[in-house]
Amino acid sequence: MQEATYQKWNAQVTAWIDEAKANILEHFHEPLDVEQKSGRRDLVTQVDKENEQRFVAHIRESDPTARILGEEGLGDDVQDDKGRLWIIDPLDGTMNFVKQRDDFAIMLSLYIDGVGQAAWLCDVMGNRLFHGAKGLGVWLNDAKMTAPANLPLSEGLAALSGPLVTHDVDHMQAIAAASLGMRIVGSAGIAFTKVLRGQQVCYISYLRPWDFATGKILAEELGLVVSTVDGQTPTVLSYGVVLVATKQAQKAIVAMQTA
Amino acid sequence: MQEATYQKWNAQVTAWIDEAKANILEHFHEPLDVEQKSGRRDLVTQVDKENEQRFVAHIRESDPTARILGEEGLGDDVQDDKGRLWIIDPLDGTMNFVKQRDDFAIMLSLYIDGVGQAAWLCDVMGNRLFHGAKGLGVWLNDAKMTAPANLPLSEGLAALSGPLVTHDVDHMQAIAAASLGMRIVGSAGIAFTKVLRGQQVCYISYLRPWDFATGKILAEELGLVVSTVDGQTPTVLSYGVVLVATKQAQKAIVAMQTA
Repeated sequence: MQEATYQKWNAQVTAWIDEAKANILEHFHEPLDVEQKSGRRDLVTQVDKENEQRFVAHIRESDPTARILGEEGLGDDVQDDKGRLWIIDPLDGTMNFVKQRDDFAIMLSLYIDGVGQAAWLCDVMGNRLFHGAKGLGVWLNDAKMTAPANLPLSEGLAALSGPLVTHDVDHMQAIAAASLGMRIVGSAGIAFTKVLRGQQVCYISYLRPWDFATGKILAEELGLVVSTVDGQTPTVLSYGVVLVATKQAQKAIVAMQTA
Repeated sequence: MQEATYQKWNAQVTAWIDEAKANILEHFHEPLDVEQKSGRRDLVTQVDKENEQRFVAHIRESDPTARILGEEGLGDDVQDDKGRLWIIDPLDGTMNFVKQRDDFAIMLSLYIDGVGQAAWLCDVMGNRLFHGAKGLGVWLNDAKMTAPANLPLSEGLAALSGPLVTHDVDHMQAIAAASLGMRIVGSAGIAFTKVLRGQQVCYISYLRPWDFATGKILAEELGLVVSTVDGQTPTVLSYGVVLVATKQAQKAIVAMQTA
């Protein structure tokens, strides 16, 4: 993406995110209207829906020919990745928002014909906006980020998903044992930020497109790898176990699948 | 403890903690001098040791007849809980400090004849000092805290320890499944703060005295329960699996041990 194009989008999307943050903080000290989706651990609140609705309205106005894939389904029914596609998670880590009022994120990204172009990932309570574009690099708020060290799995902390660990899916317990320790934060967006910052060498979870599409663009710009657990490249419409990791950690995790 | 006595200690200990925080932040952007203790996951840095040394010196001056039990062993060789005893963890979550520069704590507490009197728990990067005394309540910085809701395990997030979960010690995987989700933060001090704030309904881990002595005083003042996993009262010199939880969550966890 051209830098001027990116800067134009960055100004707009940052304003949309500020509006979404303000909406979240307005509801911060009052009881939320919480509904279950697929089960008691899969929640949605009126804040998720209001934020998605506003993002969809802004994108329709600013990028009228684009399609929109949003977690709450208020965008389009997207079955392929052709053309301009915005992928949005208006409030990632809804359980954390409901129960902890901490560790939740807002994510938006733009793909063209399946290729990531620009991404915005906001750690709301940490006041950290990670943003960047293909070929231009990544910023944390106003500071350009440097690539994290390419540490092996054995020299880093591993962010994993609770259900994958307790059911030992894809050798998750061996991966935890090979690392310096397992961490579980309960938000894909927040877990991605820790790998981007070099605080953790990998994050592995069962992810849907809006959980990883944004983080993938930022991670790849910083020399990290996003793949399926057996080393394949996920499309942005994939559902499954996806990881983000340093090159060395990814190699070790993929090797453990066939060992 | 008398309020005036507590306020006197609070002014002193807060100043010691501010000094320890300043020492931590001084080393924040430079490589640390890291040593392994019992293994590759059990670390100590020069910052842990310097902070413990300073706390010991301050306590020796302000409370000369007291004994001191510190994680790094720079206090006394304490084999019983008689008399005045300070229990200190100069930097809890050393792995997080080394690898993430986040999610670590400082903890100090005063016991007399085995009974908790006053406690200070500092979430350094969160800028949150939890402090309080027996019979006086708990403050988060300058604000008096209210007791968290007595939620059941099934309505809250559960903070657990990675090794206990992967080895399924004491039915940890069933406890995770019964909760709304498992979280692992890698610092006993930080995990205690989340239960104190009502963000999580329990925290269970293999803990040593300096890991839980401080949190225990604060938790009990807020109507929470600290016990062994089978419902016994731990002494402040206990080593073992210890939990802090709401009354309802503790009851469910203890019941699962004999089910």
